[in-house]
Amino acid sequence: MADHLDDLLRRFHAGSKRAAARLISIVEDQRPEAHEVLDRLFRNIGRAARIGITGPPGAGKSTLVDQLVQAYVARGERVGVVAVDPTSPFTGGALLGDRVRMGPVAQDPAVFFRSLASRGSLGGLSLHTAEVADVLDAFGCDAVLVETVGVGQSELDVAAKAHTTVVVLVPESGDGIQAMKAGLMEIADVFVVNKADRSGAEQLAAEIAATLDLKEWGRWRPPVLLVQARDGRGIDTVVRALDEHRDFLVREGGLAAKQRRALESRVRDLVQDRLVRMVLEMPETQALLDAGLDAIGRGDSTPYRLSNAILAASRRGLAGANASSRKG
Amino acid sequence: MADHLDDLLRRFHAGSKRAAARLISIVEDQRPEAHEVLDRLFRNIGRAARIGITGPPGAGKSTLVDQLVQAYVARGERVGVVAVDPTSPFTGGALLGDRVRMGPVAQDPAVFFRSLASRGSLGGLSLHTAEVADVLDAFGCDAVLVETVGVGQSELDVAAKAHTTVVVLVPESGDGIQAMKAGLMEIADVFVVNKADRSGAEQLAAEIAATLDLKEWGRWRPPVLLVQARDGRGIDTVVRALDEHRDFLVREGGLAAKQRRALESRVRDLVQDRLVRMVLEMPETQALLDAGLDAIGRGDSTPYRLSNAILAASRRGLAGANASSRKG
Repeated sequence: MADHLDDLLRRFHAGSKRAAARLISIVEDQRPEAHEVLDRLFRNIGRAARIGITGPPGAGKSTLVDQLVQAYVARGERVGVVAVDPTSPFTGGALLGDRVRMGPVAQDPAVFFRSLASRGSLGGLSLHTAEVADVLDAFGCDAVLVETVGVGQSELDVAAKAHTTVVVLVPESGDGIQAMKAGLMEIADVFVVNKADRSGAEQLAAEIAATLDLKEWGRWRPPVLLVQARDGRGIDTVVRALDEHRDFLVREGGLAAKQRRALESRVRDLVQDRLVRMVLEMPETQALLDAGLDAIGRGDSTPYRLSNAILAASRRGLAGANASSRKG
Repeated sequence: MADHLDDLLRRFHAGSKRAAARLISIVEDQRPEAHEVLDRLFRNIGRAARIGITGPPGAGKSTLVDQLVQAYVARGERVGVVAVDPTSPFTGGALLGDRVRMGPVAQDPAVFFRSLASRGSLGGLSLHTAEVADVLDAFGCDAVLVETVGVGQSELDVAAKAHTTVVVLVPESGDGIQAMKAGLMEIADVFVVNKADRSGAEQLAAEIAATLDLKEWGRWRPPVLLVQARDGRGIDTVVRALDEHRDFLVREGGLAAKQRRALESRVRDLVQDRLVRMVLEMPETQALLDAGLDAIGRGDSTPYRLSNAILAASRRGLAGANASSRKG
């Protein structure tokens, strides 16, 4: 296994997309060697611009991402894309395979596209998305674009791990208030009003600008850009805004602060993920849970008493497991 | 404190909306007595129809909820509404206060409306939403409507705790593929195509129906209803579909199964929430985290090594805390 991993990592560092795909699968499937992979790649991480793209379904996020990828490739950069894609019981897998997306761009050797299935994990989505972005960063990508599927709490968490967050809106999907309701005003470094040829686009842009006026901004006020992603109009302004935001972060020290915050959030996620997994997967826990649910059904217990019992048992279990904890 | 709580619970059971509001605040703010409150209310829970309303921002969820509330009140039922509302640094609180919403309906003594601020909690959103819904259930509401703000992973978790989930879509916010992308096809018990007067509404309904054809359905196939929530058109068909789905759940035993699954998910959330809080709030953890982040910054550690160290320390800490664990 170790030899195999050494070999895989060697090919990865030599630029093999196939090796990168294998490593990403190891990370995405959370195979036993996943943490070793990420641990060994860690020192190669930190060069890529991490860009989150979020917005409601139908806003044209995928089209925008495709156009950005083309723009980066055109200027000689290597680009990674991570798109979160819910698993569907209808199709039995991630809904939109890598092949459906991107078209010819995906074939470019400078482009690495990966769609992740969001298997309703316990808050694991943003962690695993960031880990896959790490692999692409270590692979030497100049930019890693992370595209969320919807716009909700988990998607905000994903965006929070990016250096620069682009919020994509379209005239019909709602006005300024709707964007505020979805918590998007707070996370955007750049606003894109897509489908700018449609009526209401300029009004939406004006509403966003008016909302931005409510707050005092320091040296970066999010620009509001009118774009028609489908035919590439305005993409150059987005690329420029992304470059400027990155320059701003580097110049003002914001990048280091963001990286530290992202790292802290990462470590917290890791601890949470592993702790919960350990406790909830203990056989004692499952037995207590089954018996406790029966007792609740009979009116003899409550969720709070049951969670107390599981916590007490898990503490004893964790203490017992302490001796063998270093292998995890 | 106990006297105070006894008094509050007595007034709550006598039907005081003010007492209900106080109890909900205790639960929402996770004050020390929150678990005792929920524990003592637990035996009064289980009568309300729990209905989740989800869909992209701008789909008209709030308007639909208002209309459903009016319909329930008109037939003499008591209704609770829990709307998740992101906290905004712009306004310093939940964005849309209870007063902004609902208008005259909110004044009706049979209606209890509460908007919850989603303070970017670690997966706590769906837990706390369900707990507030519990209070409204125990308060004697016939129906509790839970309205999500966006459509993402956390929102799917919220919906998963409902007995019946309504997915609201509008023609412009995307076609069938967009709905599938957002993971909505899998969770809907009832589809509402809102703003049915707009062009594309019937096509969207047909696309949803065609997608539903891809799967074998048992005795419940989600209906696709054309609605104009703004002027109440089609609301009666939604109310009927909700009644039918509840009858179906009761008749086929699905309700008991859903309740048990929701209970199991609740207990898991509780264990996770409390475990993570205990570990991440230990002073040792914070010290380890700070020192570890510095070490990572110097290149002397990695997130994985740091999470190992925190896990090992937390196991020792949890074992030590075991003796005093019954008070939590």
